[in-house]
Amino acid sequence: MLQLRSPPPATSSPSSAVSLSTLAPRLLPLRRRCRGAGTPLGGKTSSAVRASSAAPGATESEVVVEVAHREVARELASLAEARLGARLLPSAVPPDVAEFRSGGAGNAVGSLDVRRGAPGSTIDFMLQSSLHCKVPNGAIDITSLLIFLNASTDAPHFLMEFIQGSPTSIVVLLDLLPRKDLALHPEYIERYYENTQVDKQREKVEELPQARPYRSQSLFVRSTFSLTAILMSIDCGQGGEGTLEEIVRGQLATAASALLQIWLDSCADHTSEMEEGERENMIKRDQIVRSKSIEVDLTSNLPRMFGPDVADRVIAEIQKAFGVQEAKH
Amino acid sequence: MLQLRSPPPATSSPSSAVSLSTLAPRLLPLRRRCRGAGTPLGGKTSSAVRASSAAPGATESEVVVEVAHREVARELASLAEARLGARLLPSAVPPDVAEFRSGGAGNAVGSLDVRRGAPGSTIDFMLQSSLHCKVPNGAIDITSLLIFLNASTDAPHFLMEFIQGSPTSIVVLLDLLPRKDLALHPEYIERYYENTQVDKQREKVEELPQARPYRSQSLFVRSTFSLTAILMSIDCGQGGEGTLEEIVRGQLATAASALLQIWLDSCADHTSEMEEGERENMIKRDQIVRSKSIEVDLTSNLPRMFGPDVADRVIAEIQKAFGVQEAKH
Repeated sequence: MLQLRSPPPATSSPSSAVSLSTLAPRLLPLRRRCRGAGTPLGGKTSSAVRASSAAPGATESEVVVEVAHREVARELASLAEARLGARLLPSAVPPDVAEFRSGGAGNAVGSLDVRRGAPGSTIDFMLQSSLHCKVPNGAIDITSLLIFLNASTDAPHFLMEFIQGSPTSIVVLLDLLPRKDLALHPEYIERYYENTQVDKQREKVEELPQARPYRSQSLFVRSTFSLTAILMSIDCGQGGEGTLEEIVRGQLATAASALLQIWLDSCADHTSEMEEGERENMIKRDQIVRSKSIEVDLTSNLPRMFGPDVADRVIAEIQKAFGVQEAKH
Repeated sequence: MLQLRSPPPATSSPSSAVSLSTLAPRLLPLRRRCRGAGTPLGGKTSSAVRASSAAPGATESEVVVEVAHREVARELASLAEARLGARLLPSAVPPDVAEFRSGGAGNAVGSLDVRRGAPGSTIDFMLQSSLHCKVPNGAIDITSLLIFLNASTDAPHFLMEFIQGSPTSIVVLLDLLPRKDLALHPEYIERYYENTQVDKQREKVEELPQARPYRSQSLFVRSTFSLTAILMSIDCGQGGEGTLEEIVRGQLATAASALLQIWLDSCADHTSEMEEGERENMIKRDQIVRSKSIEVDLTSNLPRMFGPDVADRVIAEIQKAFGVQEAKH
């Protein structure tokens, strides 16, 4: 979740450790951000990432680093919000977390939006985040959309993350995150993964000649995904900026949209009869996955990108959304 | 386990259903089987597959269909037997299951050997099987080595399977099969998968340019493997017979041997303190994995290859080893 681990360069061995400083993407051109009244979230700005350095003639608050995957994420978030409607409470994130930037050189900007589920709904929270971090030869852009369910249901959570480390390559993580031990529950596999034919989306993305399997360095993180998760690294090679944008707006957007639709149709509304022990077990599993994900992803990386003060504020807010104790960092 | 599903042809989409009849490998040349006294299991013949038609000048009992992966499997089985020693009871499989063939046209031959664990040991059973099935333009060869542990330990089982559908391509399944819900047990991941560095073996096989991820058509089967499982399809293309043999005797043998060594060192001897509820849960999980695997793999495929009578006999023996009820077929 909120995978702040950097994507591996396309040529690296899967085993090589990658740090932010080893990535050397070019800075994407900054574009004016023009969100018309026609976009479902036209008035909402908290999930936009404002660049720390403005394009010529633009003021700082007017510009964003616009990458195709961020637009895709925004559209899908709008779609989910429109469908979930009153089941989502208004955003309750303080302004200095809704948008934040690194101190000093100001080489990183981010945004976080969390909307809790309304009482009586199956929704725990919907979290959108966007991070942009300059590195010596370019920038890294990470966009996340998580919609987690509460303990009234055992249905999977929705997870979508794009990690773009260069204008020609991206890592995509798309999954209906299981909440039960799949090998112990074949009926859960059948209900949420077989009957929904979710694996077809994975197959379509995997067929792209530019796609290779992406494996998290963290074995724990790997264990949290389902058997139909789309965990791919797409690398279009030198001069492949246009191809990547087409893939992001084409196949990746289609797969993400299909997964969200499946989740909205088959998971979001579904409450589950469970024995108390079973529910307790699920809650315990959920807690471990959430805590461990924050520990693996955020507490090790966010301070490096934004400095300890900003990172603490942002992590505290995510912990609040996740309903977990403060992680050590 | 005992993956009798046929390997997909290398050019097929991962979603395409493949039946035995769609595979068109060439028959491998039969060779005399000469096992010298120097081989650890020189006197053991039950795991050899005898061909249904003999090479010129050879009697039926002298010849086997020899493929490189079968030799590798035999060597590893010998290694395991040597190390486990008296912890394995003598083979207790009736002769008509130790070696069997299809009736009528006799286009399939197979062997099964099961050695139960000695009382007081951690071993439940060691199962070796070998299948050779002629298809219109060639043959399919499947070799399996499973070493399962009993409920005195929660350590992973060992699984190795080779499914060769043509002289130039093979599917390899190699894993330490987890017995717990990994997302709920980060300490289990750390102990058996992180500390043992087992993932390095997967990385090495994955680096082969001929290797592609292999995904079982069964979502359930996928859910039984660990996050470091080697599930690869190796396709060397036209004229690649020699290359495949080199890879099987080289990289695949090395990875399989390393995994077995890790399993012998870190899993085979290890008894586990567990709460009773935890142990019950593990036993239940084990039972589901075993029953469902037989259902998915064997009861749907073995009758097609060997006819119902032979298949029933063989499946009954595997069910006995697995300690599960008769599956419907």
